[in-house]
Amino acid sequence: MKGPFNPVEMIRSKRDGHSHSAAQIGEFIAQFSAGAVADYQLSAWLMAVFLRGMSDRETVALTHAMLHSGQVLRLPSVKAVKVDKHSTGGVGDKISICLAPLVAACGVSVPMISGRGLGHTGGTLDKLEAIPGYRVQLPPRRFERIVREVGSSMIGQSAQLAPADRRIYALRDVTATVECIPLIVASILSKKLAEGIDGLVLDVKVGRGAFMKDLKSARALAQALVRVGTGAGKRMVALLSAMDVPIGRTIGNGLETREAIEILHNSGPADTRELTLSLGVEMLLLGKAERTAKGARARLERALADGSAFERFARMVKAHGGDVRAIEQPERLANAKAQLEVVAPRSGYITDCDAYALGMSGIALGAGRTRADQAVDASAGIELCAVLGERVTRGQPLALIHARSKALAASEAPRVVQAFRIGSTKPRARRLLLERIAR
Amino acid sequence: MKGPFNPVEMIRSKRDGHSHSAAQIGEFIAQFSAGAVADYQLSAWLMAVFLRGMSDRETVALTHAMLHSGQVLRLPSVKAVKVDKHSTGGVGDKISICLAPLVAACGVSVPMISGRGLGHTGGTLDKLEAIPGYRVQLPPRRFERIVREVGSSMIGQSAQLAPADRRIYALRDVTATVECIPLIVASILSKKLAEGIDGLVLDVKVGRGAFMKDLKSARALAQALVRVGTGAGKRMVALLSAMDVPIGRTIGNGLETREAIEILHNSGPADTRELTLSLGVEMLLLGKAERTAKGARARLERALADGSAFERFARMVKAHGGDVRAIEQPERLANAKAQLEVVAPRSGYITDCDAYALGMSGIALGAGRTRADQAVDASAGIELCAVLGERVTRGQPLALIHARSKALAASEAPRVVQAFRIGSTKPRARRLLLERIAR
Repeated sequence: MKGPFNPVEMIRSKRDGHSHSAAQIGEFIAQFSAGAVADYQLSAWLMAVFLRGMSDRETVALTHAMLHSGQVLRLPSVKAVKVDKHSTGGVGDKISICLAPLVAACGVSVPMISGRGLGHTGGTLDKLEAIPGYRVQLPPRRFERIVREVGSSMIGQSAQLAPADRRIYALRDVTATVECIPLIVASILSKKLAEGIDGLVLDVKVGRGAFMKDLKSARALAQALVRVGTGAGKRMVALLSAMDVPIGRTIGNGLETREAIEILHNSGPADTRELTLSLGVEMLLLGKAERTAKGARARLERALADGSAFERFARMVKAHGGDVRAIEQPERLANAKAQLEVVAPRSGYITDCDAYALGMSGIALGAGRTRADQAVDASAGIELCAVLGERVTRGQPLALIHARSKALAASEAPRVVQAFRIGSTKPRARRLLLERIAR
Repeated sequence: MKGPFNPVEMIRSKRDGHSHSAAQIGEFIAQFSAGAVADYQLSAWLMAVFLRGMSDRETVALTHAMLHSGQVLRLPSVKAVKVDKHSTGGVGDKISICLAPLVAACGVSVPMISGRGLGHTGGTLDKLEAIPGYRVQLPPRRFERIVREVGSSMIGQSAQLAPADRRIYALRDVTATVECIPLIVASILSKKLAEGIDGLVLDVKVGRGAFMKDLKSARALAQALVRVGTGAGKRMVALLSAMDVPIGRTIGNGLETREAIEILHNSGPADTRELTLSLGVEMLLLGKAERTAKGARARLERALADGSAFERFARMVKAHGGDVRAIEQPERLANAKAQLEVVAPRSGYITDCDAYALGMSGIALGAGRTRADQAVDASAGIELCAVLGERVTRGQPLALIHARSKALAASEAPRVVQAFRIGSTKPRARRLLLERIAR
């Protein structure tokens, strides 16, 4: 490409399977941000990228260009190492809520900027907002002060953060160019790198309740995220975790925050705890707070047992304007008007529980959204009374549906019942953590 | 695809290499025409088509959908068989101007709707407009009357004709999706089929002065045009013709119209005449005016020799409001203010003459345009004084540049000289007509 920048040449080059230079990608995104590259040109390029691919070098350049389309935080006053966690999204995934304060209690700073839920998977912001008064929009200096003083702060993405990603994602969504690893990687990393972190732990979900349905594609995404993040100068590690059944026993914003609080009280479902600890170990290792996985795990377990993790959480909630009484009496987070029990149609073992179906049911109950402009109902959701491998007798509750009305709860009862499979023999335990991918 | 029409599913389907049904393509183009499919969605789909391809069945459906996005002429009062010719564009290609009245004189109706030139190849409309008073925009009923009474009418595309093609082409131009056979085929045929023709003869140009640079791609385009046109119910034949050197001895609108008039007077350059006759033979055969190529050629030669072809042309020009004196004294069509001779730098044989370079020079002189909104200078152009295989002596004229100023003519002289190659040995004659492709 010679002479003045020509978006058509850029599209043609990718169409024909060539590689872009970092300078070309930088210019393309800058011109797009400035309005000199039209949406229809970016869309044609996105489809060419989808079908022709991009190298890691190109993906690093795209991440960098998208990152620098907006504000990049530096957090200069935070002296501790800064490590964040990102999940590709699952049903019942409330891990961030308990993980951030837990890791902060162990000496690693967690500046976490999260999104809202869209589709069948929830979003951390919606879960935080289930706490009355909790403010997810704070100016960068306030965010930095909370990270410095409390150790963790969890906020929402501002319009100043990676604005090119927001526009590009909106186009991908309507042009069938979402499921493309280089574009996914650049989208995730451009937002996370804007937090000013030193390292990032990824929880890449695999299974019917996840974005990536099979191990091979999830592994490819995780590997690309680790390679590109490393190429962008960050410490990276990814865990692949199973997402066929919901995580823990709750789906829905208030219910999930309540479960996260149980974890911080050294209690709660074993799988939620295990995922929290496994991701926490990686964060402490990346943050160099511990040198061995064993040491890191022991330290995390101590912080749960001695109350210091919960204490961090309470301080964070308070710093964000949240009502601390609501987290001290977490039953206040599950106050839906209507609660409806769904019972087992036969006796036996729970052999399956479809995360995707329950996630879709959660949307219908008001816990999630299908369009970005929809509001969510903090108290709506599904509480699982029986989970995989447990034995139930006929008529015993399988789940408790929380909804704003009896009618709405009743309308979802069939889908919730059908999400369960009950068999005669106890199923084999399934692995939660499937692989660890580091550089 | 189930449920209400979803453009994202349509894009995804093509992205993944699937075929569309005719109904899906019809709906997609209808929704695009109605504004319910956005430009950025169409662009992503165009890139998916570019990289994944389309079957003939899909291309027929796309042609049909684009054709029916606007007015489709029927010409019910024209009883003769209606056959048109389309050229993919070459330098010095004035064939339509003499071919249409010649074929009309032999009993086949020619309802020809043409475009303007863009880039290094000229457009028939610009050449017609070199005739003072000639009106290229006429209402459909007037067009039909001229075809009925004169046998041929040549007009420009109205805004009512295949409007989806115009919008789609504008997007292809800025999204690097031009060079895609199914899209080219649908674009050409949707416009030509709107004329209400029974058959179409294609002149698919091959070489450095053409859109298709090599025989293989030109053949693929010609075959696709013939297959898809036949699939749409039309009689189709294509000739592949060489486009490495200019056709005839003139480049530029008035100059080319003058040369076409020479052909109609049974004179003019041998290659221009040969191409006119070869395409005319195919039109008479498709129009069933003659049963054999030999008979068709003899009839065309008679119409040139007995003046009936020129007489048809004069009637057509008159019917379009053109000044008949200008075609009776065609030197009036070459009235540029400045004329500059370019001479041979050495003695020898003309071994090559670069059509592309001379086409680009023609644009610079004002005979062509690089943007659709530019005006052209009817009298500007290049007259070749020596052509391939002819012997020149040093200082003898190679070409005469016609321009609106001496300075402009002089500025193009170096490029014109460099377009010629002069060698010591007489080059072998090159074939003009390369292949004939019928069903």
